[in-house]
Amino acid sequence: MSMELTAKTPAGRDLVAIAERLAGDLSERAGVHDREGSYPFESIDALRRAGYFSAPVPVELGGLGVSSVHDVIVASGRLARGDASVAIGVNMHLVVVLNLERRWSMARASDNAARERAFAGSLKAIAAEHVVLAAAMSEPGQDLTRPSTRAIRTQTGWRIDGHKIFCTMSPAATALLTSVAFETDDGVERYGYVQIPAATPGLRINDDWDALGMRASGSHSVTLENVELPASALRGGFPAGDAVPYLERNLPSGLFHASASLGIAEAAFARAARPDRVGDDPRARMLVAESVIDLSASRAVLSRAATLIDEHHAANPARDGSDEEITALFAEGQAAKTFINEAATRVVDRSLALSGGAGYTNGSPLARAYRDVRAGAFMHPLGANRAYSFLGDVALGRAHALH
Amino acid sequence: MSMELTAKTPAGRDLVAIAERLAGDLSERAGVHDREGSYPFESIDALRRAGYFSAPVPVELGGLGVSSVHDVIVASGRLARGDASVAIGVNMHLVVVLNLERRWSMARASDNAARERAFAGSLKAIAAEHVVLAAAMSEPGQDLTRPSTRAIRTQTGWRIDGHKIFCTMSPAATALLTSVAFETDDGVERYGYVQIPAATPGLRINDDWDALGMRASGSHSVTLENVELPASALRGGFPAGDAVPYLERNLPSGLFHASASLGIAEAAFARAARPDRVGDDPRARMLVAESVIDLSASRAVLSRAATLIDEHHAANPARDGSDEEITALFAEGQAAKTFINEAATRVVDRSLALSGGAGYTNGSPLARAYRDVRAGAFMHPLGANRAYSFLGDVALGRAHALH
Amino acid sequence: MSMELTAKTPAGRDLVAIAERLAGDLSERAGVHDREGSYPFESIDALRRAGYFSAPVPVELGGLGVSSVHDVIVASGRLARGDASVAIGVNMHLVVVLNLERRWSMARASDNAARERAFAGSLKAIAAEHVVLAAAMSEPGQDLTRPSTRAIRTQTGWRIDGHKIFCTMSPAATALLTSVAFETDDGVERYGYVQIPAATPGLRINDDWDALGMRASGSHSVTLENVELPASALRGGFPAGDAVPYLERNLPSGLFHASASLGIAEAAFARAARPDRVGDDPRARMLVAESVIDLSASRAVLSRAATLIDEHHAANPARDGSDEEITALFAEGQAAKTFINEAATRVVDRSLALSGGAGYTNGSPLARAYRDVRAGAFMHPLGANRAYSFLGDVALGRAHALH
Amino acid sequence: MSMELTAKTPAGRDLVAIAERLAGDLSERAGVHDREGSYPFESIDALRRAGYFSAPVPVELGGLGVSSVHDVIVASGRLARGDASVAIGVNMHLVVVLNLERRWSMARASDNAARERAFAGSLKAIAAEHVVLAAAMSEPGQDLTRPSTRAIRTQTGWRIDGHKIFCTMSPAATALLTSVAFETDDGVERYGYVQIPAATPGLRINDDWDALGMRASGSHSVTLENVELPASALRGGFPAGDAVPYLERNLPSGLFHASASLGIAEAAFARAARPDRVGDDPRARMLVAESVIDLSASRAVLSRAATLIDEHHAANPARDGSDEEITALFAEGQAAKTFINEAATRVVDRSLALSGGAGYTNGSPLARAYRDVRAGAFMHPLGANRAYSFLGDVALGRAHALH
Repeated sequence: MSMELTAKTPAGRDLVAIAERLAGDLSERAGVHDREGSYPFESIDALRRAGYFSAPVPVELGGLGVSSVHDVIVASGRLARGDASVAIGVNMHLVVVLNLERRWSMARASDNAARERAFAGSLKAIAAEHVVLAAAMSEPGQDLTRPSTRAIRTQTGWRIDGHKIFCTMSPAATALLTSVAFETDDGVERYGYVQIPAATPGLRINDDWDALGMRASGSHSVTLENVELPASALRGGFPAGDAVPYLERNLPSGLFHASASLGIAEAAFARAARPDRVGDDPRARMLVAESVIDLSASRAVLSRAATLIDEHHAANPARDGSDEEITALFAEGQAAKTFINEAATRVVDRSLALSGGAGYTNGSPLARAYRDVRAGAFMHPLGANRAYSFLGDVALGRAHALH
Repeated sequence: MSMELTAKTPAGRDLVAIAERLAGDLSERAGVHDREGSYPFESIDALRRAGYFSAPVPVELGGLGVSSVHDVIVASGRLARGDASVAIGVNMHLVVVLNLERRWSMARASDNAARERAFAGSLKAIAAEHVVLAAAMSEPGQDLTRPSTRAIRTQTGWRIDGHKIFCTMSPAATALLTSVAFETDDGVERYGYVQIPAATPGLRINDDWDALGMRASGSHSVTLENVELPASALRGGFPAGDAVPYLERNLPSGLFHASASLGIAEAAFARAARPDRVGDDPRARMLVAESVIDLSASRAVLSRAATLIDEHHAANPARDGSDEEITALFAEGQAAKTFINEAATRVVDRSLALSGGAGYTNGSPLARAYRDVRAGAFMHPLGANRAYSFLGDVALGRAHALH
Repeated sequence: MSMELTAKTPAGRDLVAIAERLAGDLSERAGVHDREGSYPFESIDALRRAGYFSAPVPVELGGLGVSSVHDVIVASGRLARGDASVAIGVNMHLVVVLNLERRWSMARASDNAARERAFAGSLKAIAAEHVVLAAAMSEPGQDLTRPSTRAIRTQTGWRIDGHKIFCTMSPAATALLTSVAFETDDGVERYGYVQIPAATPGLRINDDWDALGMRASGSHSVTLENVELPASALRGGFPAGDAVPYLERNLPSGLFHASASLGIAEAAFARAARPDRVGDDPRARMLVAESVIDLSASRAVLSRAATLIDEHHAANPARDGSDEEITALFAEGQAAKTFINEAATRVVDRSLALSGGAGYTNGSPLARAYRDVRAGAFMHPLGANRAYSFLGDVALGRAHALH
Repeated sequence: MSMELTAKTPAGRDLVAIAERLAGDLSERAGVHDREGSYPFESIDALRRAGYFSAPVPVELGGLGVSSVHDVIVASGRLARGDASVAIGVNMHLVVVLNLERRWSMARASDNAARERAFAGSLKAIAAEHVVLAAAMSEPGQDLTRPSTRAIRTQTGWRIDGHKIFCTMSPAATALLTSVAFETDDGVERYGYVQIPAATPGLRINDDWDALGMRASGSHSVTLENVELPASALRGGFPAGDAVPYLERNLPSGLFHASASLGIAEAAFARAARPDRVGDDPRARMLVAESVIDLSASRAVLSRAATLIDEHHAANPARDGSDEEITALFAEGQAAKTFINEAATRVVDRSLALSGGAGYTNGSPLARAYRDVRAGAFMHPLGANRAYSFLGDVALGRAHALH
């Protein structure tokens, strides 16, 4: 595929090579799991064996040492070519691990040994214990900075109650990373994260994901009832209602979603843009050209937005950066997500058109792509409608509250 | 639904009322048949009981007397709101019956009693015997005016061999109307139609329709092997390779396809454009407005193209009209089909967007609409790519051979 | 031009023929006036000589008797093919005369002899005195139902002060029809119309129209300072702030604007879609096909929306109809205006693309079309942004205040 | 302007700063020259004084040492914000100088002292003698690799005859770089370049540029009649009809055109996307968001395509690279040009929409932007239609002959 995205670092290049190999493997069973709506555990096993889940963990802590957000995202795009349902679950895990790596790295740059040690511990555990994290963040109709899932102080720690949706990869997760609201001792409401081991009593994966597309993603809802956790389980967080800390923690999220769209579109285009199908038909030739332009643009957009994050990290080794910088960077990522979600949808639609009736059959990878690619606009942060409002508001200097 | 299309004749208005009632009935079982990919025989029974299959048959011949192409198409759009898979099968039947009615009417206007009697017989039979015709026209990679399915003279009549695809409603049909090539006694190749009763030996419905959408349409492939028919079975036709007679017989076909797209879009919009979903979200409000415009335009386009056919018939009571008129009229129909297929796809896509994640679940009527609506561009005559070439060529005065 | 719109009544067909002849004449001097920004008085003279300004006036009152809104709009589209700058001025005059004719007709149907006589007088005068009315309605940043131009009671009648913009055709007008706010004796604020003869002291046409396009339209601003009018000059009107009466008076306005866009687009397409320019270039062939579809759709949309008004008038011979009907009808017209403005802009853009560099030269009719066609979205009622909000709000059952 | 493109090298950053300063200066007189269609010589003087015309000349040869194609293009985008008519002339000069610098650099890397000296001489002269080159390349209806302008051997050198169009910046040029066809001694037809000093007898600038937009660009046609040049004037070149050498010499051309579109769009957006204009209007807010996405994408696309050229040069210090690499790189540039030309046109159109009627006045910078931005699709290599064909053909592995 000419002029596809490439990694910028040696470790990144290795990861992309791994992803390409795995994509070939994943794609072989993608069709069956799509039809059944079953979870491709074997694919997760293959990723685990390849060390993919610890890609951002530094080499000295047992990982593959890919700290470039750009490079991890490029690799994710490759994975999505094989099975996007798997890729979007892995992506949420990688966002978490990249965040941990960034915090570890900031702690080092600011000579904060305690924090460095703490984050090193988490990162090391991820690599050593083959942790697979599913994100349990989404809630119906949600205010993004105020989870309705609550953590209540108990004598021994915390009790969690709530209901989460779209918990992608939950069937294969060793733990769920769950967003909660809680109150500090002095009555301030905060947004926090708890990591809930999959076997914890009270955690129920509802096995209810049966969707138009991304059928093999295991994006079940999860019910949390009287989930008891130790005091140490709740970490980090920020004042509920504060937008910027939320944006900072989610800088690359939209780009990971976009990488899945790109991978789906690239695979569909490669399948459909064939001289034998197109012949001299002028419409078909133009559909190919239009998709070439959309793919080229999508790659550039993804690459630049991810590179800007890497550059921001490099320019701010020890601190988050200003609110303005974070907001502008997040907005850039949302512009990228929105553009790529839409462009990829167009590319897949044209690929279906190029296939003639053949792509419209149920088992066709193009039919699957048509269903899968439409998921991107619903993934948050940010779903498409909210992204448009957010981008308009930021450009106009209007307040935007993320709810 | 404000400013929806309405019939222009009293008989048409009755038919639209019947279609609306049936649509409500059909929609109740549409979801199950979509999921199973099973055929909704009960829905066909309901249509038969309502006399829907003989809608264009004159009242004196036992039908509902809806001779306005416009009005039949408006009714079909209503039907598609309930179950588009059923509607597209019924549509192909209605195209055939409208053609028969037009020929009967032309015979009357030209005082050709023999022809009038023959067509009256066919029309009367359709009403009296509850005939349900499935069109067995499509072939893979086809030259539209030269079927590869062949009728060979035998001592007693004809032998038919060939393979047809997209034979919508074939499970419920009492007979298949099949396009064939045959040779006249003096060696000229012609395009002809044979009506093959469903129980004829050698006719095999392959039960192989398993598609992305229109899953309950029973659009199976059909194999014809040594199908023996009497001499009278092959009728009508025109020299193979001649475009205009083909266009004339298919003047309303594209509009029926378009009416299915419109019905799907109208139903999806009605489901999704709800104040409680939209609230003050500026993007959602604009998605609604954009769909209002697309729906308004689609209705107008469908109505005008169908009315032009009725007006052409009225202006040419006893003959087909000139080649130029037929070509221009067919082109107008294809512009309408193309526009509406695309506009309806946009409306459904926006409805999905308005629904949030809710529409993306497998059982959602919006998810079904998203899959169903994409079929329109593949339906012929003409598939979208061919339609674009055709329209460009006609406007530029270039020859267009339909292959 | 194949499948162009045609009039539905004999009087309408005559008017379309006149418009086509005039369009040829107008087009010959359109280029010069565009370049100079000068007003084409000769073109107005030609229209006056042809009786075009009294087209909707009943034959018995001295006009051409074209009471079909549809047919007048179809003729206007023809005129715009020749010189859209002239057409948009004539359009505003015709909206006024059609309104008068409608009111005259309602008075007759309800046996209100006094009203009938009054409107007959106005209509007769328009025909006999060769009245040319320019609309002085627009104001900067306006609330559509509350003009800031005010009429104040004086001892002898009214004094008018205010500033109007976009007073198209003002250089050639015999009178300006001006919207004003005024107070009734009991202190209620009302919206009213005054007709101000062009030579009235205090009326100043500012000769300041110098725009990107529609350069020959004479859409100057007009200043009204101490304009004294007799008591009879102020007529009609409705309570300020009431949307529906405003909508009722402007039912066809958007469609007239749309007809100008359509005429521009049709002329540009006819110029550019030529086999010698297109050759075998696949992109050019597809641009032609896409424009065929857009033109076909635009014609259908214009025709249906105008026909719905005629049908509404026929169904309500003696009264306006319900608020819901008026609102739905106006919304349909705005959907049509919005669609056609946008589609026509696409058609012109593609025509420019087909022309190669040739169309980009300053004197090219395509360059003029590119500038002219963009005006449509700014014409009110309703400008494009407001139209989208209005359509969304109506569909969602939200209140919409037109300000 | 948040997240605008930035240079990657220190010399590039200086150039961008110069361009931003000059843009402010240029913009002040852009309106007058646009209206008059006159040439802004003062703006060219300002650029010359700032050393802008020798930006790519190495510092040791008297220039500003900006060898990064990316950085020169970013600076050009800034210049276009001020006056795009000036920028597009400067761009063609810079393409030539960047090509010379690349050849000088390749000669150095391959230790070819003679070539290095020759190119160093040309570069030094450009800086020292304040050379301003206008490109005289375009011809009507042309085969890109076979100019119809011919160079014929004479006893003392060459005689040139032909007609060129779109010779942007010709009024201010010290010399015209002209593409010619010529025959070698052994009868092989070649494509070559001659540099014709502006005062050469037989060269006539026809002062005939009067266009819709880019009115101050001086893109006159040029007639060459019996132009006598010394033998040394014809240099370089490649076999006529060979596509790849043509593509190689034009790798960045499309991106320079795109940078002009981007600059126009950025300036228009900055003018129009103002909270006071937008208010709470949902359509206006969405137009802003859509333009944010288009601008973000355009920047990313421009940046990546330019960076790929820099990377290709770095990876191939001493040779052109393979035909496949050149073709893929050129295609990427054309995808970028096409995307950005179209996206910028959308952004300008939306900016006009946001302005209300204000932007539609003749003197408005937005009206100028609306006319200017449409030029991009006609600039070659490659005009839009040819670019689509080329991209489709390259993706499908079809031959594409550039004629």
